[in-house]
Amino acid sequence: MTRNNRRILLASRPEGAICAENFKLVSTPLEPLVDGQFLVRNHYLSVDPYMRGRMGKEKSYAAPVALNEVMVGATVGEVVASLHPQFAVGDKVTGLFGWQEYGTSDGVGVRKVDDKLVPLQAYLGVLGMPGVTAWYGLNKIVAPQAGQTIVVSAASGAVGSVVGQLAKLAGCRAVGIAGGAEKCRYVVETLGFDACVDYKAGRLYEDLKDATPEGVDGCFENVGGAVLDATLARMNPFGRIAICGMIAGYDNQPVPLKHPQIILSMRLLVQGFIISEHPEAWPPALKELGGLVAQGELHYRESVVEGLERAPEALMGLLKGANFGKQLVKLV
Amino acid sequence: MTRNNRRILLASRPEGAICAENFKLVSTPLEPLVDGQFLVRNHYLSVDPYMRGRMGKEKSYAAPVALNEVMVGATVGEVVASLHPQFAVGDKVTGLFGWQEYGTSDGVGVRKVDDKLVPLQAYLGVLGMPGVTAWYGLNKIVAPQAGQTIVVSAASGAVGSVVGQLAKLAGCRAVGIAGGAEKCRYVVETLGFDACVDYKAGRLYEDLKDATPEGVDGCFENVGGAVLDATLARMNPFGRIAICGMIAGYDNQPVPLKHPQIILSMRLLVQGFIISEHPEAWPPALKELGGLVAQGELHYRESVVEGLERAPEALMGLLKGANFGKQLVKLV
Repeated sequence: MTRNNRRILLASRPEGAICAENFKLVSTPLEPLVDGQFLVRNHYLSVDPYMRGRMGKEKSYAAPVALNEVMVGATVGEVVASLHPQFAVGDKVTGLFGWQEYGTSDGVGVRKVDDKLVPLQAYLGVLGMPGVTAWYGLNKIVAPQAGQTIVVSAASGAVGSVVGQLAKLAGCRAVGIAGGAEKCRYVVETLGFDACVDYKAGRLYEDLKDATPEGVDGCFENVGGAVLDATLARMNPFGRIAICGMIAGYDNQPVPLKHPQIILSMRLLVQGFIISEHPEAWPPALKELGGLVAQGELHYRESVVEGLERAPEALMGLLKGANFGKQLVKLV
Repeated sequence: MTRNNRRILLASRPEGAICAENFKLVSTPLEPLVDGQFLVRNHYLSVDPYMRGRMGKEKSYAAPVALNEVMVGATVGEVVASLHPQFAVGDKVTGLFGWQEYGTSDGVGVRKVDDKLVPLQAYLGVLGMPGVTAWYGLNKIVAPQAGQTIVVSAASGAVGSVVGQLAKLAGCRAVGIAGGAEKCRYVVETLGFDACVDYKAGRLYEDLKDATPEGVDGCFENVGGAVLDATLARMNPFGRIAICGMIAGYDNQPVPLKHPQIILSMRLLVQGFIISEHPEAWPPALKELGGLVAQGELHYRESVVEGLERAPEALMGLLKGANFGKQLVKLV
């Protein structure tokens, strides 16, 4: 009996903010496997800010998703049929199958994962791309030293939450920036940051100044715009800024940097990076992060919606900051 | 007989552009030397963009000049009296004696130089701080590789002219940005750059695009503002930008960076630096630059005004781009 695979395609490119009409849900019969292939039932889809970039026409650091193709994205799931010698029915795997119920693969880019000690979906967050992104940007660019002050924006999110916790473990003062009192409370009380500034409270620079009495030595930037302006104005000499995201400008809003001369006057290093270009970082990052998660030293939080059809809504919410922690779509 | 020393003091701090009233010429009798001191008659004063920053109230990377103190700056001259065992009358030296006819020293920060093969004033330009600045920013931050395209702003100036010539020697395509057709012609015809864009011609981005058909891999920035915006929009993936100056904003004009998201999308490295913090760079830089100057492989040009009293005018002109090459004040 042929199985159907429900899939969400990119139906049109957004102008400004994305909307439901940019997506289309279709159901397609699965092709039979050929030798060397296996079939994965996806359990969770990852929803990440970078997906907004892939929906536009412009080639950024990766090619855009083609119209009427499946939306990209990381997934975790279980092998349900296999004609591949290394993957057996029952294996748990993570891959890049995108927004669909099933994925067919020859094994390239698919990795077996162990869900005995950690839940399967952690491989989309703290033990996946967001966790490795945090580890790389913090350790390889921000390069924190004990006693320094590190600021991270989108601090309650999948990446920011790991950045701040790793900074604390490195002996730093960790200061978050997040939207709303509830997220800020979580960042301080649960994640253990020293302080968290609510950018929605209307006193961004003043509050950040109060939270960073000795200035800022390192910044892990996920947001850009006014948030980055405020942090830049607090930087100490020889500070490092890892540019991981500029979600403030993803819908083509202007996000000018008001005072770039601070880069000179404070002799700063500003470095943009994309984790997919640093494959060498994954093994050491996952080793460290896996150990910390297993020992309960790294907290993470998930925002889960159920049902493939709700993936567009989850991405729209994420881009507005409506999520709280790693955004996932549960399929099974 | 007591000699008088004519000196130019900072009389007031500028609001916006500097003007003659910010300076005051005074004549003071020289104190007699004490054991371990020597007296230098300054032959040339250096006039550099950084001096604008020292005239303001704000501590930038160096303390401001105090009101009624001598204006800072590098000098070259000759020892005319000495009670110091290592410095003899007739020695040619370079130091930081500032805007005055004579300097008294115990030797700290003073270096003997040889003016047999190169003119004395070259130690204020191509073989001084500007030359070492160019060498460091290009080699240590921009890190050019043969075949790459390197853009430098203020290309006919003391720093920019060296940057482009070193980039050519490294096998790169060197593209300058300068103000006016005459400077651009000099940059291409005499300095040997591949192209030079006249930012005053009103087609900055279009002309830069034409001059960089394969994009830009490295940028050495002296100007900031619209000039940096244009270059940023031409950057290739993994490009490097050395921020050496932002002269466009020295009178407190806003110099926002319009599209900082390019730092992320192109995974750029942006690094501000101040050459005085890299003393280790001077010996290798001077060795290389000295060899090139002696072999006639490094061109440089000077803009000389005569008389101490004209130093303020020289600095005002420099900040407006009126100079053409290294700006000097000749005293003797």
